[in-house]
Amino acid sequence: MTSSNQIYPVLWHHDKVSLIDQTRLPNEYEVVEISRCEDMAQAIRTMIVRGAPAIGVAAAYGMYLGARDIQTSDRDSFLKELESVANLLRQTRPTAVNLFWAISRMLKTAYETIGTVEEIRANLFKTAQEIHSEDLQTCKAIGANGLAVLPSKPDKLTILTHCNTGSLATAGYGTALGVIRSAWYGGRLARVYADETRPRLQGAKLTAWECVQEGIPVTLITDSMAAHCMKQGLIDAAIVGADRIAANGDTANKIGTYSLAVVAKMHNVPFFVAAPLSTIDFDLPNGDSIPIEERHPSEIYRIGETTICPGGVEFYNPAFDVTNAELITAIITEKGAVKPGELSSLLARR
Amino acid sequence: MTSSNQIYPVLWHHDKVSLIDQTRLPNEYEVVEISRCEDMAQAIRTMIVRGAPAIGVAAAYGMYLGARDIQTSDRDSFLKELESVANLLRQTRPTAVNLFWAISRMLKTAYETIGTVEEIRANLFKTAQEIHSEDLQTCKAIGANGLAVLPSKPDKLTILTHCNTGSLATAGYGTALGVIRSAWYGGRLARVYADETRPRLQGAKLTAWECVQEGIPVTLITDSMAAHCMKQGLIDAAIVGADRIAANGDTANKIGTYSLAVVAKMHNVPFFVAAPLSTIDFDLPNGDSIPIEERHPSEIYRIGETTICPGGVEFYNPAFDVTNAELITAIITEKGAVKPGELSSLLARR
Repeated sequence: MTSSNQIYPVLWHHDKVSLIDQTRLPNEYEVVEISRCEDMAQAIRTMIVRGAPAIGVAAAYGMYLGARDIQTSDRDSFLKELESVANLLRQTRPTAVNLFWAISRMLKTAYETIGTVEEIRANLFKTAQEIHSEDLQTCKAIGANGLAVLPSKPDKLTILTHCNTGSLATAGYGTALGVIRSAWYGGRLARVYADETRPRLQGAKLTAWECVQEGIPVTLITDSMAAHCMKQGLIDAAIVGADRIAANGDTANKIGTYSLAVVAKMHNVPFFVAAPLSTIDFDLPNGDSIPIEERHPSEIYRIGETTICPGGVEFYNPAFDVTNAELITAIITEKGAVKPGELSSLLARR
Repeated sequence: MTSSNQIYPVLWHHDKVSLIDQTRLPNEYEVVEISRCEDMAQAIRTMIVRGAPAIGVAAAYGMYLGARDIQTSDRDSFLKELESVANLLRQTRPTAVNLFWAISRMLKTAYETIGTVEEIRANLFKTAQEIHSEDLQTCKAIGANGLAVLPSKPDKLTILTHCNTGSLATAGYGTALGVIRSAWYGGRLARVYADETRPRLQGAKLTAWECVQEGIPVTLITDSMAAHCMKQGLIDAAIVGADRIAANGDTANKIGTYSLAVVAKMHNVPFFVAAPLSTIDFDLPNGDSIPIEERHPSEIYRIGETTICPGGVEFYNPAFDVTNAELITAIITEKGAVKPGELSSLLARR
């Protein structure tokens, strides 16, 4: 693997889905083959596949895999069972809206197909493939739109990012890391500072790996160092992804994003969110009602084979936090970059 | 070990110094015996003993151990060799001023002793023991003074802390964790939230261990979760220690402290620094010229036996950062708690 353009976390291949097992990177590169919707649900839950857009693509294929196994030619029975498949997949991860968006789009395809169960199945496969290929195009558009709104000075920017929002988090190319990639190929990037992103270390494991694959200079720091780096004047901009954006621009993203946005504001470092339109939940007026997934405490207390704390300790492990719109300089989508308060203007461009 | 009152990281015993090896906690409790100043320098450098006040105590004994091994009865030769011992110890860790303070006090003892080399040696031992026992009394006074300035509501406070500032970081009892201990015994504490404190995880390994020993309820979080916890209204106050405080109140402390202070300010969570007067460097007008130690990148990339990132990555590993005085609600010392701008008023109380 020499270029990240060749990193595809989700691939349809020989009637199965191939997933890069992201829990094993960067030490092992292993591909998991999925042919049942139950296995896809498990892969999403255990974060073999992760990243809001990639979860959407995986869930779309999961819907098709479930549809393929439904043993009926009766349309109503089929649709009823497909709803169960949808529920199974919906229960995997509560925060990223792309999951729900992809499942809804697949269900809509099924309900709107006038024809046999076999024809519904064929259309479901087509929609899954559309969701997949659209995401790659969407990411490239986000990259271009992001490049256009990056600070004009200095000529070569040092950009801080959190978690992994690259090829591995999408169908390919990436959202926030896609913007960074576009900056690199556009001659505007000096270096990436990658937050390691505790507890699961996606920055250290995945973002660093993608940057190294692509030859992009990357400096790894602990999450707690970002503010100090900004104070030293080392950071020109921060860019992160999103798991769900409310109508007012409040943004749920990987835990630590909110802290980063607060310290960026303090240092007048522009703070960008890069995400496809499918991440925007126009049904939510603000971020207060975004459900925040809590994951198992072992993500905090165990790293590899090491237990980092004594017994008798309690834990709090929210996987996401919500960044208030006023801390965000712009939200970069495939239809353009806008201030958080102007998200509704994107509706006309959809 | 059932009570933290019995945790003494530095003990003088059978003509040697016994150090709890803090790099092995919480999984192993091992005591290292030190009888040469070179070994004490190495123990400070490798963080077998750490925490600004404990480093001061260890360095004082290190000076005595060095003095004990000087093979001369000529006063001038002795003092010259003692300066070499001082230099060896000064080179271990640049940021914590307590190290330099303790070494200076030991040198002063030597120069001011009118008498034989043997008498100087005896006085050096006496001064080391004074520094040791004073620190324990100092911590208890800090605890009492801190308890007096904690928010009056709610009745039972939830207090967030960073790194380890407990018995292990001092001669015993602790500075910031000493205040928390006093709150616990004073019936004012509901729970401690402990930042894990990457990269070396002193919060997870040491603070959590001390709290468990003492029966204090403790919730471990990653450093990146503190802002989210504050936003949820979970935190009533934050208390940290210090490695060096400039005359204007700017405070160098464990990396991540600055980030925490910024997010505390954003949420109107009172942010306290607890430290002995020996941590205040009145020679420095502000924090800009505090030297910040950079440590080996392996502290970031290796956790236990696990390497968390691929090869080809660069690192930045500052061990400390500087928190601006305006982010600090009060600095709690053994002579009272004052606003950062009023540190000079403590000089009269010394």
